[in-house]
Order: sequence, then C-alpha cells, then structure tokens
Amino acid sequence: MTDIDRRKAVLLTLLAPFASYTLRAAGEQPQEPQHEMPDMQMPDTENVDWMGDEQIAMLMYPGMTVLDLIGPQSLFGALMGAKIFLVAKSLDPVRSDAGVTITPNATFDTCPRDLSVLFTPGGTDGTLAAAKDPETLAFMVDRGARAKYITSVCSGSLILGAAGLLKGYKATSHWSVRHVLSGFGAIPTDARVVRDRNRVTGAGVTAGLDFGLTMVAELRSRFYAECCQLMSEYNPQPPFNSGSIKTAPARVKADMIQLLAGFTKKAEELAAATKS
Amino acid sequence: MTDIDRRKAVLLTLLAPFASYTLRAAGEQPQEPQHEMPDMQMPDTENVDWMGDEQIAMLMYPGMTVLDLIGPQSLFGALMGAKIFLVAKSLDPVRSDAGVTITPNATFDTCPRDLSVLFTPGGTDGTLAAAKDPETLAFMVDRGARAKYITSVCSGSLILGAAGLLKGYKATSHWSVRHVLSGFGAIPTDARVVRDRNRVTGAGVTAGLDFGLTMVAELRSRFYAECCQLMSEYNPQPPFNSGSIKTAPARVKADMIQLLAGFTKKAEELAAATKS
Repeated sequence: MTDIDRRKAVLLTLLAPFASYTLRAAGEQPQEPQHEMPDMQMPDTENVDWMGDEQIAMLMYPGMTVLDLIGPQSLFGALMGAKIFLVAKSLDPVRSDAGVTITPNATFDTCPRDLSVLFTPGGTDGTLAAAKDPETLAFMVDRGARAKYITSVCSGSLILGAAGLLKGYKATSHWSVRHVLSGFGAIPTDARVVRDRNRVTGAGVTAGLDFGLTMVAELRSRFYAECCQLMSEYNPQPPFNSGSIKTAPARVKADMIQLLAGFTKKAEELAAATKS
Repeated sequence: MTDIDRRKAVLLTLLAPFASYTLRAAGEQPQEPQHEMPDMQMPDTENVDWMGDEQIAMLMYPGMTVLDLIGPQSLFGALMGAKIFLVAKSLDPVRSDAGVTITPNATFDTCPRDLSVLFTPGGTDGTLAAAKDPETLAFMVDRGARAKYITSVCSGSLILGAAGLLKGYKATSHWSVRHVLSGFGAIPTDARVVRDRNRVTGAGVTAGLDFGLTMVAELRSRFYAECCQLMSEYNPQPPFNSGSIKTAPARVKADMIQLLAGFTKKAEELAAATKS
C-alpha cells in the first residue's frame, strides 16, 4: 500500500462513521466508495498503526432491532482495513422490527470461517425465533468455535446463550431479559458493557455505541477509539434521565416492565427449553 | 380501533425501537410485523394518548451516514400511529458511506406533500452532492414549505441550508462544519440539539439519539419520550471522553480537524456558491 493509498484509506474509514470496507456481497473485495474523495490532509501521527485486517461478522435476521446493528456497525466500519460481513440466511434484504430493510452481503455459507469478531444484535420475537432456529444456531456455534471475540448487544445475548456460547461467562443484555442469561449458564452482570475473557456483551439497544467504542479500543487502540468518538461526536446529552431501570420515573418503569412481561416470559421459556 | 388493537399497536411501537409503521413502499398501508405477537400485558396508564398520525419523511441519499438516519428512525419508529417514509430519488436500495444498503419506501414523487416532520441525515461528500442536487433541493424546498418541523442531524443541516430552509434560524451541525451554516444565513449554535421555532437540528452523528428523544417529547409528551428512552436503554456511558471538540485529547482533536479539513473547505465552498 502506497502512502497515498494509505492516507486515502484512513480518511475513508474515519470519515463518516466511516469505512467503505463493508462488502457489497460475499466474496467481493473491499470497494471504493461511490462518492468523490475529499481533499486529503492526513495528519502525520506517529506510532499509530492505522491498518488492520479484522474479519467481522454481524448477524442479521428478520425482526432484529436495527439500532442494535447499526450502532456497532458504525464503529466497526471505522476500522481501516477491516472487512464487515452483514450475514443472513440468504442475500435477500432483511426487515428489522421497526421496518428498516437492509441488504446482507454474506450468507451463513459464504461468511469467512475464521473471524475476528462474531456479533449479534437483539430484538424481541425475532430474536427468540433466531435463537430457536437450527441454521442460525449452527452458524453461531461454528463461527463461535474459532472467533477471536464473541459479542452481542441488547437481547442478542439470548442468541449467544442459546448457542451455548455464554456458559460460565459473565454477560449482559437488555434489562428486561438480563436475568434470563443464567438459564444459559451465564452470569448475568449489570453493566453497560461486560467483558469476560473474549466475550463482550452490551446492554440494551443504545449500549451498542459504548460497546462499539470498547471494541475499537480492544481491536486497535484507545487513540483510535477516541478518534472515532470525536468523528461521531459521541458526547451524549439525553434530555431525560429515564434510560435505566434504576433512574426511570416510577410510572415509566412500571409500565415498561409490564409491557415487556410477555417477552420476558418467552425468553425465560427459551432458556428453560435450551437447558433441558 | 378496539381496545385490543390499541394495546397491540402500543406494544408493537414501544417494543423494539419499535414501530411496525414504517411502510414497505409508498402508498402501502402500515403493516403488521412479520413476527408473532408477544403476550400482552398492557399497562392501564391514564391520561396518556398513545396514538398519533404523524407523517415523517426521512431523506436518504448515496453516501449518507447511516447512524444519522437510524438513530432518529429508531425513536420516530416508536411513535404509535405515525407513518415513516424513507424517501429517495427512486425505490432502489441506497448505499450509505459505510456500506450499509437500505431500501427506501417512498420517492420524491410518492412522499406525502404535507408532513409533520421533514428530516435529513448528514455525511461527507455524499451530503455535499445531495446539497447541490436540483431534484433533492426541489423536494426539500417543496415539503419544507409546509412541514410542521424541519429537521436534521449532523451535516444534514448543510442540505437544509442549501435549500434555503435555515435563513434566520439558529441551527447546529457536525462540529467540522457548524460554522459553515452562517453561509446559508443561519445562526450557528453550539448545542447538542438546537430548536428555533420549528427548526430542530442535532449535532454530529450520535446526537441523533438526543434529537430523536427531543422530537418524541415534542410530538407526543415527555412521558412517551421517557418510555422510549427506557426501552432503548439510553443510559450512555462512553468509555472515553473524546466525543466533543472541547473534551477530546489534543492530538485526537488536531488530527481529526486536519483529517476533515478538505470536507470543511468543500462545505464552505458550497455555502459560498449557494449565497451567490
């Protein structure tokens, strides 16, 4: 890679959230973006190794929560040289719970066998369905046997659990189902991002940003992660203080617990069925 | 709507981030989700009007930053009864800057003429291209003339500016181009979310979450927004303190300013060309 190429690649990955290394379809080489390059004024930063070669697989399935996927993808996407595989059963577009339709670029068959990171997003009923699906579980078990990191955000940890990938590991999930992880032999842990050896799990939905930055620092460096944080201006200022079961107003908390009771119950049943 | 239907709709919208009201294609009616319904235990919350009828248009264009779109979409998607139009020039899938391909459900022609919210995400060169594109600008000008709220996240405000929709309004943008807004007659304002009359603009990328919650509270109620915040567990805990140009380590800040200098310059040229 020439200096010019290297500089171009750095800009492409850090701009945007910002990589152009997500593949169009399985087997394709990383592509140049469709848009014109901005002028380059690459900083001469010493002692920073900008290039990597991670292979990151992000599971997609019908009914996934799209922000569970896109939060981490936006940060993985800034890893220069990394390849991101959006993996599904087929290359048909996948419809999320909230109606956003995303096109996969790899299938269970074409996804590389040796991964740096295996990731799954969460959701509600779609997640429970994926966690019971033999093909999906077989994919997770196979890639999980060799992946350097096995990861999830939100209720995606139910899929890891159902695949037997959390036995004996501390892990977290969406608050509504975190306790369910014990049914898979995991140790439910109350933290935004939980790391236990090579398992890294995030809490509900928006925890994907904290998870993503944690992973960038892990895969590259704290400096690299700080650059990504500034580029995505991740300086959160929630207008309310209702983001945790500990801080939400009593009525909000009671109503949302009640609203999710059916999902929580089904997740408990899934864990019971998996154990037996 | 029967009580059962109402309860079902509330659950569908609050679960997940969480609506199933994003349409599949222009002209279609809101659809039931593909997945099975969880058991219902809807809280009997008094004095909460869960239903609305907002029509929300979210612009999509090649090279958009996908998290700029998906952060707000995840919260708009929780507005029960609202219809979300992912609008592009055609119904062909749109490829984001970081390689995520999303399918639109409306075109400039089929998008409703009277909108509750007109929204645009940002990006880098793709955003500058959209801000110069006559068809895109014509769409924004037309819908902006009647929309109840005119909104953006990140450098999406450059598109609002180029369409003449920010003249005399306070607004914000990604830190790298916020000052450029003055070139469009706007008043650049340093805040996470800036509201001036019916213009609501968010700062860079991840500000879409704070923006989205602000809009949910505006369109519905603080209680509704607090429910959404708990469902998406938005209790951010960034592992580093580099998310603002004010707090980033000096080397991170200097490098990222330099890295974006070309984009900043092109945005300034766009503003100069728009004014003349």
